[in-house]
Amino acid sequence: MNKSISASRANIRVNGARLWDSIMRIGEIGPGIAGGSSRQALTDDDRVARDLFVAWCEQAGCAVTVDDMGNLFARRGGRNNTLPPVMAGSHLDTQPHGGKFDGVYGVLAALEVVRALNDHGVETEAPVEAVVWTNEEGCRFAPAMLSSGVFAGLFEKNFAWSRKDAAGNQLIDELKRIGYLGAQRCGDHPVGALFEAHIEQGPILERAGDTIGVVIGGQGQRWYDVTVTGQDAHAGSTPMPGRRDALVASAALVESVRQIALDHAPFGVGTVGQMSVAPNSRNTIPGEVFFSVDLRHPDDETLAVMHRAFRACCDEAGGQNQVGINAVEIWHNPPAQFDRKCIDAVRSAAAKLNYRHRDMISGAGHDACQICRIAPTSMIFVPCEGGISHNETESATPADLEAGGNVLLHAMLEVAG
Amino acid sequence: MNKSISASRANIRVNGARLWDSIMRIGEIGPGIAGGSSRQALTDDDRVARDLFVAWCEQAGCAVTVDDMGNLFARRGGRNNTLPPVMAGSHLDTQPHGGKFDGVYGVLAALEVVRALNDHGVETEAPVEAVVWTNEEGCRFAPAMLSSGVFAGLFEKNFAWSRKDAAGNQLIDELKRIGYLGAQRCGDHPVGALFEAHIEQGPILERAGDTIGVVIGGQGQRWYDVTVTGQDAHAGSTPMPGRRDALVASAALVESVRQIALDHAPFGVGTVGQMSVAPNSRNTIPGEVFFSVDLRHPDDETLAVMHRAFRACCDEAGGQNQVGINAVEIWHNPPAQFDRKCIDAVRSAAAKLNYRHRDMISGAGHDACQICRIAPTSMIFVPCEGGISHNETESATPADLEAGGNVLLHAMLEVAG
Repeated sequence: MNKSISASRANIRVNGARLWDSIMRIGEIGPGIAGGSSRQALTDDDRVARDLFVAWCEQAGCAVTVDDMGNLFARRGGRNNTLPPVMAGSHLDTQPHGGKFDGVYGVLAALEVVRALNDHGVETEAPVEAVVWTNEEGCRFAPAMLSSGVFAGLFEKNFAWSRKDAAGNQLIDELKRIGYLGAQRCGDHPVGALFEAHIEQGPILERAGDTIGVVIGGQGQRWYDVTVTGQDAHAGSTPMPGRRDALVASAALVESVRQIALDHAPFGVGTVGQMSVAPNSRNTIPGEVFFSVDLRHPDDETLAVMHRAFRACCDEAGGQNQVGINAVEIWHNPPAQFDRKCIDAVRSAAAKLNYRHRDMISGAGHDACQICRIAPTSMIFVPCEGGISHNETESATPADLEAGGNVLLHAMLEVAG
Repeated sequence: MNKSISASRANIRVNGARLWDSIMRIGEIGPGIAGGSSRQALTDDDRVARDLFVAWCEQAGCAVTVDDMGNLFARRGGRNNTLPPVMAGSHLDTQPHGGKFDGVYGVLAALEVVRALNDHGVETEAPVEAVVWTNEEGCRFAPAMLSSGVFAGLFEKNFAWSRKDAAGNQLIDELKRIGYLGAQRCGDHPVGALFEAHIEQGPILERAGDTIGVVIGGQGQRWYDVTVTGQDAHAGSTPMPGRRDALVASAALVESVRQIALDHAPFGVGTVGQMSVAPNSRNTIPGEVFFSVDLRHPDDETLAVMHRAFRACCDEAGGQNQVGINAVEIWHNPPAQFDRKCIDAVRSAAAKLNYRHRDMISGAGHDACQICRIAPTSMIFVPCEGGISHNETESATPADLEAGGNVLLHAMLEVAG
């Protein structure tokens, strides 16, 4: 490699203002009611955002292909186009009351890498691609990370196609309707490596005053649906002893889930996010309660210990309150292990660029956590204000987003050659 | 009083089979889906049940009047019709998934007293009346015990008339529609005394093997609407320390409510019957929870102690979980004190008839708990299976219902002369 070219490669940077403007432009599509976005997967608004992204990629000289899950691949050729592409990307769909940055940032940071390479006339050895994964959020079509999951062989395509939204629309019909059912079979697209830049969606970087999270893997998750069955009874005329109050038992388990997570600090987390009470009447003792449990830890054996502790708490709460507790594990997603070489590329880029950085575990699931099962992968986190995400007030600074873009650029250059 | 008449009065009994058959007939109107009844206030089904009751009363020789809250008074004249009538009754409306006995039993036991007096040719000094109170349940038009409350001066009539059901129908319009907006001003009807026979709706009599509850008063109640405000955050990427989980704080308060009740055994009860969680998403830490609290105790000072303990628990749970807790007391209903003479009449009748009986506090609210503010009142409880009520499986035995009818008959004879 010619020394002056090497020097120029080391000095190039993304255009932070252009990256910010692109994020703001996409954020206008499917506007929220409080400054965020409401652009669920495969809606008309999602189509408009995809169309704009494709137009931008074509303006940047990329060839865009679409697979039969609607995943988009925008390719900037390399010197050796027989090499599998070095990819970066994320998703354009949002939560119903979502922010402007979750997913969108990773997609547009990838596009910004392409644009910056163009600006500086840099040729890479392997091709570089910006990718958009369909239906990451899972709020319109459950489960989340669906199309990256099909790509990684974790879900059957027919299962994914048959997912329905609340109105009964099938995913495949919505793909056709908005014109994004592509010809390529999902999973056939070669992947040399995948990077995903993302806002942290947690408070760790902000609290530590760091700019870059070098993500070394993702939490393993175990999800449960819990149904507690007691006995409806009159709230006034039923003495306390002998009550079979499903909500009292459930409240004890909410506390147990918290305690189990605290017992496995600092990485263990546990959350009851959903709860419904029946008959849900002010003066009737609740006879049935449903709630969800989400346990996470980056070490699968520790997660198994948490699982057994939760089972024991269910038995105890059931016995103490004379209620039946049916806790069904509906999902066990083992921890994601990212690729040593990709992680090193991110860490070196952050160090070279003098950004304060720290190794981190991703608490959230991401498309990268699916793709890492089949290809070298890692992620780059940047801070978001107050750690808040899945919320219209989600916010990140232009400077941090630019820093993440620069780390992405140099990590991709390192791997793409 | 002539001795032979006195002897015959002491020996008369209600017709238990006729009472049972009448209860079953009314139970067919607005049938439930699981053997109970679904006959909410002022529906077409309520009209059919009222029409049948009125027809039965007229067949029994009663004159029926209706007041402008739809309360029905079926009058069997006495020797001295200038005396205020000795009444018995309850309500014909049910919960959406209600039983056949709650309310209906008290109304038809009153009618059975009239029929039994007719059978035996017994003349009373004061008139005897069977009464139906409108909208006791409160499930269609909140609050509960509405028309007996207007009668007792606890609610304004215009407030009651303007109550709306979930479809927006006003109570006054529904009274007119079913033909039960009477001419008499609610509250103008004279009351010498009121008895209400009712299933216990709790397990105490059944557990003790007693047949008759001599009800000496009703629990005082304090109701709260509680809103807990934390911070929505990602369930995976938000470490446990620093979470502001509104459901964790609410679960602690569910346990506090239970403990406060246990601290004031045996009469104290405390229930969280309603709860809703927002955003109610499996992988989002709940940022807001609403729940109801119902505290009851027959002694108002003790109830005030429970109230202060609950306030203190709210402060503690708010501080520990860094959440805001807004607990609004929406209702304070002081304990109902029944009339010594009416209570004695019930206790003596039970003793004279050799029924196992015990003094009790009513845990539930009843029309009698409203009327007792303005007239001598008491209640008679009979066991119900498993203490279950507000449920289609609500059940009581013909023998117990007959026993309660006999106690009602003799208590009324005692007071009416």
